[in-house]
Amino acid sequence: MPDRSPTLAAQARLSHDLLQAVRRDAPLVQCLTNFVSMNYAANALLAIGASPAMVHAAEEAPEFARLSGAVVINIGTLSAPWLDSMLLTAGSAGRAGTPWVLDPVAHHATAFRRDAVARLLDLRPAVIRGNASEIIALAGGQSAGKGVDARDAVAQAEESARALAAARQTVVAVTGETDYVTDGSRALRITGGSPWMPRVTATGCALTAVVGAFAAVSRDDPYAAAVAALSCFGIAGASAHDQAQGPGSYAWRFLDALAALDAASLVRASPLRA
Amino acid sequence: MPDRSPTLAAQARLSHDLLQAVRRDAPLVQCLTNFVSMNYAANALLAIGASPAMVHAAEEAPEFARLSGAVVINIGTLSAPWLDSMLLTAGSAGRAGTPWVLDPVAHHATAFRRDAVARLLDLRPAVIRGNASEIIALAGGQSAGKGVDARDAVAQAEESARALAAARQTVVAVTGETDYVTDGSRALRITGGSPWMPRVTATGCALTAVVGAFAAVSRDDPYAAAVAALSCFGIAGASAHDQAQGPGSYAWRFLDALAALDAASLVRASPLRA
Amino acid sequence: MPDRSPTLAAQARLSHDLLQAVRRDAPLVQCLTNFVSMNYAANALLAIGASPAMVHAAEEAPEFARLSGAVVINIGTLSAPWLDSMLLTAGSAGRAGTPWVLDPVAHHATAFRRDAVARLLDLRPAVIRGNASEIIALAGGQSAGKGVDARDAVAQAEESARALAAARQTVVAVTGETDYVTDGSRALRITGGSPWMPRVTATGCALTAVVGAFAAVSRDDPYAAAVAALSCFGIAGASAHDQAQGPGSYAWRFLDALAALDAASLVRASPLRA
Repeated sequence: MPDRSPTLAAQARLSHDLLQAVRRDAPLVQCLTNFVSMNYAANALLAIGASPAMVHAAEEAPEFARLSGAVVINIGTLSAPWLDSMLLTAGSAGRAGTPWVLDPVAHHATAFRRDAVARLLDLRPAVIRGNASEIIALAGGQSAGKGVDARDAVAQAEESARALAAARQTVVAVTGETDYVTDGSRALRITGGSPWMPRVTATGCALTAVVGAFAAVSRDDPYAAAVAALSCFGIAGASAHDQAQGPGSYAWRFLDALAALDAASLVRASPLRA
Repeated sequence: MPDRSPTLAAQARLSHDLLQAVRRDAPLVQCLTNFVSMNYAANALLAIGASPAMVHAAEEAPEFARLSGAVVINIGTLSAPWLDSMLLTAGSAGRAGTPWVLDPVAHHATAFRRDAVARLLDLRPAVIRGNASEIIALAGGQSAGKGVDARDAVAQAEESARALAAARQTVVAVTGETDYVTDGSRALRITGGSPWMPRVTATGCALTAVVGAFAAVSRDDPYAAAVAALSCFGIAGASAHDQAQGPGSYAWRFLDALAALDAASLVRASPLRA
Repeated sequence: MPDRSPTLAAQARLSHDLLQAVRRDAPLVQCLTNFVSMNYAANALLAIGASPAMVHAAEEAPEFARLSGAVVINIGTLSAPWLDSMLLTAGSAGRAGTPWVLDPVAHHATAFRRDAVARLLDLRPAVIRGNASEIIALAGGQSAGKGVDARDAVAQAEESARALAAARQTVVAVTGETDYVTDGSRALRITGGSPWMPRVTATGCALTAVVGAFAAVSRDDPYAAAVAALSCFGIAGASAHDQAQGPGSYAWRFLDALAALDAASLVRASPLRA
């Protein structure tokens, strides 16, 4: 990848501005997310300054999507009634111009999930956030992962991510030890985080929710939204690491770090890399 | 409001006695509550000394309500099957003389919720606990809130709360920076808490659950139950604030503070105000 | 009970080996568990070194059970669609040779639960984990418990546990202040833990999930799996106690302790008793 230092610096400043916008506007982020992550994702949204709304039923979720700043759809604990509602809500979001973000949790594990994700993809998410195994499989590749864990490294998923983003005209964020974000043409990497993060359940789902918060304040540029959200997780995630003594203490220290995150650090200690 | 200091002192002593009763009796509190709050509400109930039971299915929840000390119904993540069960369970609780408490989360956000709450209200909750926006809208007023956040101040909701309590012969608790409780004729305010509280998801839902615990030991006086529960949250909430460094640490420190709450402090440092 | 010290020492060494196997293999543990416990159980599985997958829908859970190292079924927040899926998934697990673990939460509280557990039992769980009241009732005895709490002491449940294990050719683990594990002929007790444990919701459900992790690496010996899981909870549970100041801090300190658990301590400070 060519040296993009000036672009990276501009992107870092944009992340700074978007974090301030999230804190100023407290965008309403509607999540149709899995049961495991609901509490932690809501707390992450509150910590970053957004306003979570876990509204999922088919009777109201499509209507609510018209009020929302962004919609987040995560198939972690999928079931048939939830899928119906996700499809209706993503459709409603699309018609209303509300950006929506997809987390295709373990979509390659069963036929039910594969079919669900294929139908959701057709409804044009603004951003897709997954681990390397999920993104490789989503682009049609052969993943080593069987469950919700990533068995593949992010670097192995870069080509898949780029192809998927280009084919679907979306932004793809692959997260792992170093993250990778691409819109099919642009791409960059985000460092930071902590080895404890994959040992705390729902941190990935919380990240997807926070991508939604940034998408709400960056409707024209979902690439910038994804980069900003991942940057916040990178910096706050590393900051929480230093004081944590295990996954239990990491979980709450990370929320404290997200809430205390100094926007200036997104520029001063930018985690962005070419 | 006239000076009610003697009444406030008597009310504080009653709160003290009710907390001791909760700890002695460990009342069974059945919660049909939202997915986001289930874990935190159960932990708050355990911390205060009650026994939580998250039993929600239509096949058993109405039957279980006859065994419960109180029932708590919270529409945060409502869906059609849950609403059916809530209506059956509230009805069963009513017939059995089991007090039930309503948390009308964001009921003004969608038609589905508005209709649900109208039907639940007809089943006569002993206490309604909500934020200012929810209570104003419930009384037929125009609220500034759009989602689960309160965009209105508690003081603006006092008249709505009083009218709602009188019209429905119930107790209404409006929570915010300073809380307000009324049964339509009596009213008082409760101080304490922490600015971190609204930054931790499910603290309001946990409070509603704890109102249920107190309602179970104060069946003839749901006003006293609401005042006692809010007082516990006021004092424990302020005590947790001093040591918390953010919303993550506040969440667990608050549970520690609830469990460690000295009943005498409800009198000695009463958070009640006229 | 006769002195079984040599057997206890061998069992302790086996627990040590099984913990190392869990950490090496990171077995995929599929949980159909209650909403209250999902997050905490997933975090406990990650802390011990396993890989959680909360996959519950009838459309995919039976298929997923063929990939899983073990399946955990917990009826805490049961509903009709979940019960259908539990029955299908337990059946699929049985056909695939995947061990499955049953947590019959409050099964004696309602007719719906009693019937559900009777049908699940016929599908032959490898291990049943419950509190004393649940196990007594499951063996046909008269329990003092009404809700999810144990109102009976473990010692009172030992005969019930032994009879149930023998009749159903399964392993029964009764947990409380001192735990009891039996396969109908063998039996032992496990000490440790903390008085805070029953004051933190979902610790029992998390334990059942961790029994699943051990069952995945000890398919031929579910008795050893249950003993190892309870030993980890005993030692990590006592270790967390020393630094906790209440149920809030205990919850995360316990996860830290599980992750930091030195396998050698299972032998050196064995919590096993005759």
